Amino acid sequence: MTSQTALSAWRAGGVREQILDFVQRVTQPDGPEFVPPPDRVAVFDNDGTLWCEKPTYTQAFFVLQRLGELTAAKPELRDQEPYRALLAGDHAALAALSPGDIARVVLQAHAGLTPEEFNAAARRFLDQAQHPRFGVRFTALTYVPMLELLAYLRAHDFRVFIATGGGVEFVRAVSEEIYGVSRDDVIGSAVQLAVDRSAGTLRLVRQAAFWGSPDEGDPKPINIQGHIGRRPILAAGNSAGDKEMLEYTQARDGASLCLLVNHDDEVREYAYASRGATTHETEPILDTAARLGWTVVSMKADFRTVFASQPH
Amino acid sequence: MTSQTALSAWRAGGVREQILDFVQRVTQPDGPEFVPPPDRVAVFDNDGTLWCEKPTYTQAFFVLQRLGELTAAKPELRDQEPYRALLAGDHAALAALSPGDIARVVLQAHAGLTPEEFNAAARRFLDQAQHPRFGVRFTALTYVPMLELLAYLRAHDFRVFIATGGGVEFVRAVSEEIYGVSRDDVIGSAVQLAVDRSAGTLRLVRQAAFWGSPDEGDPKPINIQGHIGRRPILAAGNSAGDKEMLEYTQARDGASLCLLVNHDDEVREYAYASRGATTHETEPILDTAARLGWTVVSMKADFRTVFASQPH
Repeated sequence: MTSQTALSAWRAGGVREQILDFVQRVTQPDGPEFVPPPDRVAVFDNDGTLWCEKPTYTQAFFVLQRLGELTAAKPELRDQEPYRALLAGDHAALAALSPGDIARVVLQAHAGLTPEEFNAAARRFLDQAQHPRFGVRFTALTYVPMLELLAYLRAHDFRVFIATGGGVEFVRAVSEEIYGVSRDDVIGSAVQLAVDRSAGTLRLVRQAAFWGSPDEGDPKPINIQGHIGRRPILAAGNSAGDKEMLEYTQARDGASLCLLVNHDDEVREYAYASRGATTHETEPILDTAARLGWTVVSMKADFRTVFASQPH
Repeated sequence: MTSQTALSAWRAGGVREQILDFVQRVTQPDGPEFVPPPDRVAVFDNDGTLWCEKPTYTQAFFVLQRLGELTAAKPELRDQEPYRALLAGDHAALAALSPGDIARVVLQAHAGLTPEEFNAAARRFLDQAQHPRFGVRFTALTYVPMLELLAYLRAHDFRVFIATGGGVEFVRAVSEEIYGVSRDDVIGSAVQLAVDRSAGTLRLVRQAAFWGSPDEGDPKPINIQGHIGRRPILAAGNSAGDKEMLEYTQARDGASLCLLVNHDDEVREYAYASRGATTHETEPILDTAARLGWTVVSMKADFRTVFASQPH
């Protein structure tokens, strides 16, 4: 792969060349910015960075499906909010849910399952459910240029990790298939597990409570350090919840690349500004990126292709 | 590597053949117990399973060294327990410390350091300090048959993880060098990290508090699931703190191998029974192993060699 043909799903003349330049610098054996392979750690947010997060998080649709099953068994839930709005298929109400609202419902929806049962449920959903606008499976709505970037980094001896604000076990259900990222290389929000011996042998069972804090804001670099034990040299995100992860990456001694995906393509995807509610930030994340010199990826200008299912 | 020459540091006639048989069964492509490579997850406790944990945990010696530095700066600490006993070099008092006592001192000793600073301090200690009985570096006191087992498993497409009750960052400082286990494949007890911006850029700083519970007992399988996202098919431990990890492994659908190292060799290492204080278990772990049918590794009978530094 030469730098002429690499990253062909990225348009020439901007971010593509910055990525190629960065990878060249940190992999040049006698160069001043050389980074040994074990330290070539790259971390990627998932929702809105690797796949589409609109009209709301994919996991919210998964929870919606589960709520349909649960309220079929407990009809009295159907008149309670947010169940009512969710079950009415009210996309406006769905989009207005805060991450906290989603979290509470997520936690209740799958409590009591073992990790294996949760994984099977997530797979069933992701193998079948379709996106309301694009009419394809949610797993088909990964960004082609980002998949290409993951492969390009691996070809240059980077280790690629996912650091998601979403549920770690939800993303793990498809991370190997759609991203080539091993289950143990996914870091994310988690629910508490408890040891249960009621069946005679030791089982782990999901509880209706977060395990630590949701993986947004300060917890993101903390969980990266806790899981990987190394500071990334490349980080990619798209929202205010990714700010601290990007700052931590940038603050390392030596070269780093901080990518921020800007959703500015309402034709091929969506045009929206990231919400900052989860980190109590008032500065829009695009302003932070400009102030700190991060590399902003314009979906409209930099992505030659967005989704594999679309005409190029 | 044929089964004739494999695991030559293990004596023939017992555990060695059980290991060879297990690996053969789960790697036989058309066999009824075949396990695909990504699911061949093996987890190893560290202290007393991969390296020597007597007269006390290696990390306790590291903390002792640090306390010497700290009390040089704050002499008033020298008359307080457990500082006094520790600094007196009183090995009897040291051996009598509970894991909780050790934890409190560990937490205080390295609070305020960044992960990089802690790693450098751990490396300095492990590169220099010598074991009081054997007169070699602590990192030389890994068990040769266990190192051979790690290599044998990798050669059969297993993924090898460490699940330690010790500090995850302490073990990571040498895990790649002495075990060939990547930093991110080490799971263990952790201290809280906090985001610190006082230096102008984002740093992470160690706090004087555990991050979650110490990685012993119930938390061990919970942390394994949280980190790896897969249930192990092979687990090895030596103490009551490993019981739940071994039970979780054994309870999977399909073949599993649960190894318990029995320290019964006072000539080449130590002879002692595991303490059960951390999990409030009253049944000695060797009795648990017998009751549940785990494979007990006799250091005296099964290990042809214990340490590389000893005559074979």
